[in-house]
Amino acid sequence: MPSHGRLRGIPPMSIITLTTDIGVSDHYVAQMKGVILGINPQATIVDVSHSIQPQNILQGAGVIGEAHRSFPKGVIHMVVVDPGVGTSRSPILLSTPSAHFLAPDNGVLSHILSEGYGEPPRLSEEGVSALPPGFQGFHLDNHSYWRDPVSLTFHGRDVFAPVAAHLSLGVPPASLGIEITSLIYLPPPMPFEEGGFLVGVVTSIDHFGNLVTNVRAKLVAMHERIEVEVQGRSIYGLSQSYQDADHLLAIIGSGGYLEIAVRNGSAAEALSARVGLRVRISPHPPKQAHS
Amino acid sequence: MPSHGRLRGIPPMSIITLTTDIGVSDHYVAQMKGVILGINPQATIVDVSHSIQPQNILQGAGVIGEAHRSFPKGVIHMVVVDPGVGTSRSPILLSTPSAHFLAPDNGVLSHILSEGYGEPPRLSEEGVSALPPGFQGFHLDNHSYWRDPVSLTFHGRDVFAPVAAHLSLGVPPASLGIEITSLIYLPPPMPFEEGGFLVGVVTSIDHFGNLVTNVRAKLVAMHERIEVEVQGRSIYGLSQSYQDADHLLAIIGSGGYLEIAVRNGSAAEALSARVGLRVRISPHPPKQAHS
Amino acid sequence: MPSHGRLRGIPPMSIITLTTDIGVSDHYVAQMKGVILGINPQATIVDVSHSIQPQNILQGAGVIGEAHRSFPKGVIHMVVVDPGVGTSRSPILLSTPSAHFLAPDNGVLSHILSEGYGEPPRLSEEGVSALPPGFQGFHLDNHSYWRDPVSLTFHGRDVFAPVAAHLSLGVPPASLGIEITSLIYLPPPMPFEEGGFLVGVVTSIDHFGNLVTNVRAKLVAMHERIEVEVQGRSIYGLSQSYQDADHLLAIIGSGGYLEIAVRNGSAAEALSARVGLRVRISPHPPKQAHS
Repeated sequence: MPSHGRLRGIPPMSIITLTTDIGVSDHYVAQMKGVILGINPQATIVDVSHSIQPQNILQGAGVIGEAHRSFPKGVIHMVVVDPGVGTSRSPILLSTPSAHFLAPDNGVLSHILSEGYGEPPRLSEEGVSALPPGFQGFHLDNHSYWRDPVSLTFHGRDVFAPVAAHLSLGVPPASLGIEITSLIYLPPPMPFEEGGFLVGVVTSIDHFGNLVTNVRAKLVAMHERIEVEVQGRSIYGLSQSYQDADHLLAIIGSGGYLEIAVRNGSAAEALSARVGLRVRISPHPPKQAHS
Repeated sequence: MPSHGRLRGIPPMSIITLTTDIGVSDHYVAQMKGVILGINPQATIVDVSHSIQPQNILQGAGVIGEAHRSFPKGVIHMVVVDPGVGTSRSPILLSTPSAHFLAPDNGVLSHILSEGYGEPPRLSEEGVSALPPGFQGFHLDNHSYWRDPVSLTFHGRDVFAPVAAHLSLGVPPASLGIEITSLIYLPPPMPFEEGGFLVGVVTSIDHFGNLVTNVRAKLVAMHERIEVEVQGRSIYGLSQSYQDADHLLAIIGSGGYLEIAVRNGSAAEALSARVGLRVRISPHPPKQAHS
Repeated sequence: MPSHGRLRGIPPMSIITLTTDIGVSDHYVAQMKGVILGINPQATIVDVSHSIQPQNILQGAGVIGEAHRSFPKGVIHMVVVDPGVGTSRSPILLSTPSAHFLAPDNGVLSHILSEGYGEPPRLSEEGVSALPPGFQGFHLDNHSYWRDPVSLTFHGRDVFAPVAAHLSLGVPPASLGIEITSLIYLPPPMPFEEGGFLVGVVTSIDHFGNLVTNVRAKLVAMHERIEVEVQGRSIYGLSQSYQDADHLLAIIGSGGYLEIAVRNGSAAEALSARVGLRVRISPHPPKQAHS
């Protein structure tokens, strides 16, 4: 068996995860699972989320970028946020030292690429990034691992699901398509400095209404005192729990990012916040009364 | 073991799917799974949908009619849209050459019957259809495979789940109840011709807002040019992807039916469409400007 | 192996259930599953509900109190409704003759305690209850079974999930932390007598809009005729199915409690009902015309 099938000694496992914008009200997710189980009845399938906003590639990129870090090595992640299904966009496999990712080549694996480099990758003029060291990419073009016929509109079921199932049975990545050396990269918003402040944005709002920002813990955690300004409100210091303030608070969330929360409530509601909202951080604020 | 247990050589598998109107906010779905796993801890349980509208038998019939086609042979499908639970309606097992279906006898397996005949079945005056060749039906009346006691209101947990689990362990269908030869059939809306046009209806609206009609691909695909009229709008020709038009488009969807979609948007919103909306198709339209 | 690991001969099974207020739109539930599968790839994970209202401990207590009764013995139930995450509240394991429960010590296991006693337990002044006979409790404080590092905000992923997975592999409960003898108990509302009537409340409203009360079947089932008053409406007698009345009806639901329902409709809508609504039951009403 070629070495591609055993990247750094990590055998493909029979755990397959699903991240899509397909929703759970229709039967489409079940159809993907049916196809997988028809090929590998021993597969363990885990839903990551089917609530990505329709066609929101960047949101999907963020979700799989976070979610995959809690899974064991060798897992197969299907990431099907695929507005270009049926067009010339390529279905691809990205095999990294930690996992396999099956997705359209539309930027939905951008966070995985950043993680591989440890920083945002350099982009070509076409918006593509070379693969980080230790990564391998394949353009899925071996139709013999696909369903037949392939629909125009649902490659999650007809291309990605059967390929995931065959991969979980040990089919080497190199058998699934021709090797490629770059992928489309969509730059996520990055925090920046402005006038002595660190400026970030809200990148997601969770089920509780907590505002997750793009500001990593290491950018704020070394400061004993910080002031976070959001929607005209000021928060002083970092809390150690969601109960650790009367109302609005800042805390390092479970993904390692600065979050804005409200004790037993929704920060999104309290602040009428949306994704994209600016958050301004002052590392050494003068001590003031709470606004 | 009687031949009933091995219909055409297809052993019951340990994959059990669930299609219900029970929703996922309560613990009811989990209770069904708990009962199944208590009897067959090796069962693989797949949710098809729990978002059937409450008591909407015809919607449930359509969903399982589509979903089952992506599953391997021998799977056990529980279809619990059961407004008559606790009344005299019969719990039944329908074993077909491809799968087993457990459901109340209320029409929720109508699409499975149509598929068996290759066309809508002939109905008796009582609204029942004889079973297609190769199909076997059983009225589940052997209480020894049920939970004890059986609640008045939740046969999904107390009748269908334990029967599914026992079936997945190899209990022959004929042991579960007495054989029956007909089932209730609810005619789904069928496309018809009117004034030289083919008239269909929207039968479901998916998570993206795509309008799925009851017009099969074979009815439109042989025509080089078609015009689709819906809500006073005209669409010319079939698209090959959701990106293949500026706005409104017609395409053959993943279930093999004509769909109306909007590029990166919701056709349901754009057209204020609902299930039941008429769609009129002209196979040979005069060439016109896009309205 | 100490006897703690084999309570009354019930081996920990590899079935793990999840009851949380985390929702399913984010990737948080998947992260818990990823952690579990990384430790025990053979685990079978079942979602009970992720739709507990944020921070609603009493609702979570009711849901797991009902749901667990359909699962086989030895199952591991994770109950993560945990507004105090990161504070001094204890993560605990409660091992009962029927199952294992992993939860914060905040009252979310109150129904399990009641069930162990067969009645509401006596409380100390601090609001804690001693454990029923046959129950064992452990304060999870052995960090070697936790993820490292542990986040401030997500012990479901970092504490409860890895402990559940280790427990499912046979790690004895006593290895997971020090034994404790009492737990916090939150008294759920109990039916009471008032002026010759039995007064209950609506404790939950299900997906169909059925109103589930706290009135157990045994309190009403022995009476041939009962009258149920709710929102100024009167219902005479108990129905045997949801079809068994023209409109509003009372029935014993699948959990063994009195429910108010509407035939093919939503009682919650028809009565503008909410959780907490009073229901008054008259065991021997004078015969009247239906209001």
